[in-house]
Amino acid sequence: MSTPKKIAILGASGYTGAELVRLIATHPGMEIVAMTADRKAGMTMGAVFPHLRHLDLPVLVQLSEVDYADVDLVFCALPHATSQTVILGLPEAVKVVDLSADFRIRDPAVYAQWYGGKHDAPMLQKSAVYGLTEFYRDDIRHARLVAGTGCNAATGQYPILPLLLAGVIETDDIILDLATGVSGAGRAPKEGTLHTEVSEGYHAYNVAKHRHLAEFDQEFSRAANRPVTVTFVPHLLPQNRGILVTAYVKGDAGVIHTTLAERYEDEPFLHVLPLGEAPATRHVRGSNFCHLGVIPDRVPGRVMVFSALDNLTKGSSGQAIQNANLMLGLDETAGLMLAPLFP
Amino acid sequence: MSTPKKIAILGASGYTGAELVRLIATHPGMEIVAMTADRKAGMTMGAVFPHLRHLDLPVLVQLSEVDYADVDLVFCALPHATSQTVILGLPEAVKVVDLSADFRIRDPAVYAQWYGGKHDAPMLQKSAVYGLTEFYRDDIRHARLVAGTGCNAATGQYPILPLLLAGVIETDDIILDLATGVSGAGRAPKEGTLHTEVSEGYHAYNVAKHRHLAEFDQEFSRAANRPVTVTFVPHLLPQNRGILVTAYVKGDAGVIHTTLAERYEDEPFLHVLPLGEAPATRHVRGSNFCHLGVIPDRVPGRVMVFSALDNLTKGSSGQAIQNANLMLGLDETAGLMLAPLFP
Amino acid sequence: MSTPKKIAILGASGYTGAELVRLIATHPGMEIVAMTADRKAGMTMGAVFPHLRHLDLPVLVQLSEVDYADVDLVFCALPHATSQTVILGLPEAVKVVDLSADFRIRDPAVYAQWYGGKHDAPMLQKSAVYGLTEFYRDDIRHARLVAGTGCNAATGQYPILPLLLAGVIETDDIILDLATGVSGAGRAPKEGTLHTEVSEGYHAYNVAKHRHLAEFDQEFSRAANRPVTVTFVPHLLPQNRGILVTAYVKGDAGVIHTTLAERYEDEPFLHVLPLGEAPATRHVRGSNFCHLGVIPDRVPGRVMVFSALDNLTKGSSGQAIQNANLMLGLDETAGLMLAPLFP
Amino acid sequence: MSTPKKIAILGASGYTGAELVRLIATHPGMEIVAMTADRKAGMTMGAVFPHLRHLDLPVLVQLSEVDYADVDLVFCALPHATSQTVILGLPEAVKVVDLSADFRIRDPAVYAQWYGGKHDAPMLQKSAVYGLTEFYRDDIRHARLVAGTGCNAATGQYPILPLLLAGVIETDDIILDLATGVSGAGRAPKEGTLHTEVSEGYHAYNVAKHRHLAEFDQEFSRAANRPVTVTFVPHLLPQNRGILVTAYVKGDAGVIHTTLAERYEDEPFLHVLPLGEAPATRHVRGSNFCHLGVIPDRVPGRVMVFSALDNLTKGSSGQAIQNANLMLGLDETAGLMLAPLFP
Repeated sequence: MSTPKKIAILGASGYTGAELVRLIATHPGMEIVAMTADRKAGMTMGAVFPHLRHLDLPVLVQLSEVDYADVDLVFCALPHATSQTVILGLPEAVKVVDLSADFRIRDPAVYAQWYGGKHDAPMLQKSAVYGLTEFYRDDIRHARLVAGTGCNAATGQYPILPLLLAGVIETDDIILDLATGVSGAGRAPKEGTLHTEVSEGYHAYNVAKHRHLAEFDQEFSRAANRPVTVTFVPHLLPQNRGILVTAYVKGDAGVIHTTLAERYEDEPFLHVLPLGEAPATRHVRGSNFCHLGVIPDRVPGRVMVFSALDNLTKGSSGQAIQNANLMLGLDETAGLMLAPLFP
Repeated sequence: MSTPKKIAILGASGYTGAELVRLIATHPGMEIVAMTADRKAGMTMGAVFPHLRHLDLPVLVQLSEVDYADVDLVFCALPHATSQTVILGLPEAVKVVDLSADFRIRDPAVYAQWYGGKHDAPMLQKSAVYGLTEFYRDDIRHARLVAGTGCNAATGQYPILPLLLAGVIETDDIILDLATGVSGAGRAPKEGTLHTEVSEGYHAYNVAKHRHLAEFDQEFSRAANRPVTVTFVPHLLPQNRGILVTAYVKGDAGVIHTTLAERYEDEPFLHVLPLGEAPATRHVRGSNFCHLGVIPDRVPGRVMVFSALDNLTKGSSGQAIQNANLMLGLDETAGLMLAPLFP
Repeated sequence: MSTPKKIAILGASGYTGAELVRLIATHPGMEIVAMTADRKAGMTMGAVFPHLRHLDLPVLVQLSEVDYADVDLVFCALPHATSQTVILGLPEAVKVVDLSADFRIRDPAVYAQWYGGKHDAPMLQKSAVYGLTEFYRDDIRHARLVAGTGCNAATGQYPILPLLLAGVIETDDIILDLATGVSGAGRAPKEGTLHTEVSEGYHAYNVAKHRHLAEFDQEFSRAANRPVTVTFVPHLLPQNRGILVTAYVKGDAGVIHTTLAERYEDEPFLHVLPLGEAPATRHVRGSNFCHLGVIPDRVPGRVMVFSALDNLTKGSSGQAIQNANLMLGLDETAGLMLAPLFP
Repeated sequence: MSTPKKIAILGASGYTGAELVRLIATHPGMEIVAMTADRKAGMTMGAVFPHLRHLDLPVLVQLSEVDYADVDLVFCALPHATSQTVILGLPEAVKVVDLSADFRIRDPAVYAQWYGGKHDAPMLQKSAVYGLTEFYRDDIRHARLVAGTGCNAATGQYPILPLLLAGVIETDDIILDLATGVSGAGRAPKEGTLHTEVSEGYHAYNVAKHRHLAEFDQEFSRAANRPVTVTFVPHLLPQNRGILVTAYVKGDAGVIHTTLAERYEDEPFLHVLPLGEAPATRHVRGSNFCHLGVIPDRVPGRVMVFSALDNLTKGSSGQAIQNANLMLGLDETAGLMLAPLFP
């Protein structure tokens, strides 16, 4: 194995930061040389995340303290809006995978509409590549800046994009019913993510107004080559990891299943189950895999398409590493073949 | 308070049996005089369900040992198929609330199709009243035999029935996305309901073929006065109690909200949230309440209607007691005003 | 039933406040006439706690807005330290049950040592009665101010106090291993009580320094009539409700079991299981019951004594209502006979 | 990398079998050539455990169908009692790591006492090496048959064995309070391990009579060179993975901490936390690490020692692979450096 690539993680004290470290811990081609966490600067990562205490990692530092001279690639796991400013200030020679929402939306007007303000780095926004690896692989390989997708957005796109590209479903009657674990909400304390408020219960949130709609609109319309406006209802699950999309579409179940199976046949991380089977989030937990299923409804022409992935892995940090592997010329699957943890 | 009504519970060793006992424990007008559990005959209820150990209850006996002479009403919580034979043998003077699926379907052919066999008590089947209290109240009041609804079926009917009756939604485009806690699967050990297999995960099951579809077809078609065939996808939640239906319908959100609000205005257990709010299962846990919500989609004409209830209470044993109250001439809400348990 | 007693709840927006409301909802002798929540003043209780939306309750107001003229009894569910000042300002005619830690410790020096400061109401502190109902019943009946016990402290005292009073265990070798659900930590957002940080894990916290040690020292020493210093290790469980104490003591298992069984024979809420059986927190969930068990070790002379209760009910708000019942001349068990919710 | 060692897994359809496959999936020096599951013979592993569907694995076969000609090492994950007969019939040239309890106890009389019958392979029993790697490393390296330890037994021995060997704690006053996740109970459906019966609750089980006591007695007495009889109370946690032992011992906290820290200094999987810190099961989830902590009590001379590990990994399948690595001449940590999965 050649020299590992040198990695910096900006914003390492959140769950996506910790997940990056977890995955890089057994990645043969990456070495973490800097990690930042402004409010926890000076602490060890093991003190912030005791599950990582066995690793030999750099101490957490302030953003301003990072020396990028030797850094090959930066994972930016900072909050939305902060990311764009920070990335704007990074040396041009450093490749960047951003895990925030800042560079997902190409159209500045759409960005402003969903994220409530002008973008501070419009030129970067224009050049950023959308990080849905299986659909932007070649662009990602040559990108300097890749924008990680929303975790819900990724889960919804895997089952739908190939169907729109192939023109095998009605474009104006797509419903994405989604259920997500709570880790996507992050580690910042909020009443709504307390154990007492999440466990033993289920409810919809951000109905018809979730920001990941912007990504669906952008990518689905691009794929269909006409405006596509889906219905999207996210729900919060009493579990930490995992997203399941139940997509209600119109088309032929057999054709839909074949379309997905053929599209993902050579993809290392996407698995299409036999027709009639539904995936479960627990079977992709902690892994970079995405399981897809297709089941025909008894109502003629109605089909349910399911997708399940782990929001912190394939939905965020695993995806980021997959993209970084491409950008750094490494094996795309390096460090990512960990089997799911069950039970 | 007059003399309490004398109650027998057949099949008391399952979760619906235990839930009946829990609710009757503080019911001012009911007294349990007999409880059966064939395989656990001879045991105390406290040995089978230690959370009921403080109650002074009859010892569990065999079905054949029950003396119905003094019994006013029987709750039959026996398995499907067993129920019909047992109820057929009960004295005519005893009123019966059946919690199984045996008497929910009026049409013998439909019953045979969904439940796989001829009905053993077709005359009773014909006379049984469907137990969705708010829609069959008068019939229930005078019934000798009431058929408790499926728990999923109840959760799906509360948001949809008034809309079909009022003709305010399209009848041929109704999707019921449902998520249920695991207690509905009962106490008999199965691999699929182990803690290891249920916790930290979410998946769809019995897609497009769940038996509660038979109830939806029967009741929805009756309400709409034409055949209605809904799409129905149940999912299993990593929690014990609670069902949430997310119904995707077409109509006007304001009209839908008003229709539901007016229909349920005087109902003691049904609460329609303000337009734009979504209910949560944890907020009805352990109670006989059902919370309903309506939210307009961004897609014009598309509306989401939500309903949440506790499958063991309003979805089963609480509903059974509500119906029994009516049948016995008691206050309909007696014993059922317990506030939900949260957190 | 005579006129209900008029109740005010100060600090109603926390979990103990909500639990008081849940229990009073079906209490035949209490009526809530005022509820405060400074930061949520103006809101309905149903907006703060949607599981209580079916109740007809006064709107939340500022502390300063309460008119105590008609109030018979105040439940004070305010934070530690705030309580003492507020209660000091209440009219003398109003009875008070305080759920904070402010009046649990009789000795001002001990209070200062554990709670880090001088007490602002030392005269009240002197007159307050410790709220462990089964051991202070007569005093509580005549008290103006009752100090609710710590929830852990209650769980640890039920199995041990009778043994110390009877002199049947060694006083200098008592270990209380405790595991508690997370709701005791309250609703204020903290990283440590997020779902992600609590679920699927178990750990000890505040080892050998938990403030409830002050209560153990005070009450155990009083019972034994000599200084008793126990070992106490609390752990956090991935569940919302319930505390289990596993006490390791030295004595004779049969004598210990008999001592507990006789001591609690006439107590409505304490149940001693047959010798050799261990209780479970899930079997007292949401109830005012406490289950106790005794099992001899294989090591001669070593005995394990277990106690399980619900921290929000018997450990806090249920206990508070039980004490209030006594103070108001109501039936001690009024409103508290709800059976546990299982599963 | 040289040719991978050829591995057979007998009894692959249980959780320890699946965990072996999960770990071997990214093990650079092992290749699975045969897997058995009598009742599921003919099925793919992906059908039995969908989280492993991405792996290219041999189809499950009957025990009798395995050809051991090319097999280097067998992991035997069969039930207790079955294991001994099966292993007796294996070719002498095949190395064996047994995950059952059959070869843990050296003394046939003690085995008979705890496991209720005569051993069918007493000669093998005599030659088997106890699989607590850190204490039997050299013997394991040269063993043909290694007996995996009980998962509770491993968790209890890591904090106590070094202290007994060093003579720094009282040998006749050791209490092991243990809490374990439910996956240790296996995948066979039982009422006691249903989600409804495990979640949201905590209780002690097998108090003072758990079979792992036989291992504690054997190994602790050996280490102390005199009979040691500990008190051991296991509890069941509402979580899938993880065991925490809270050991109550007598000695000097500083000396105890130093003894453990020095003993495990060079161990790759054992981490002793700074004095005063307690470990959590969630921080070792899915990994082969064991975290240890020492905290002095306020009672002089009383010390709490904590250990946390994942029962399926370090407590069972991870340990098995660690031992197999030694037996096969591979790097001891090969395939086992996966970071814990959190949250």
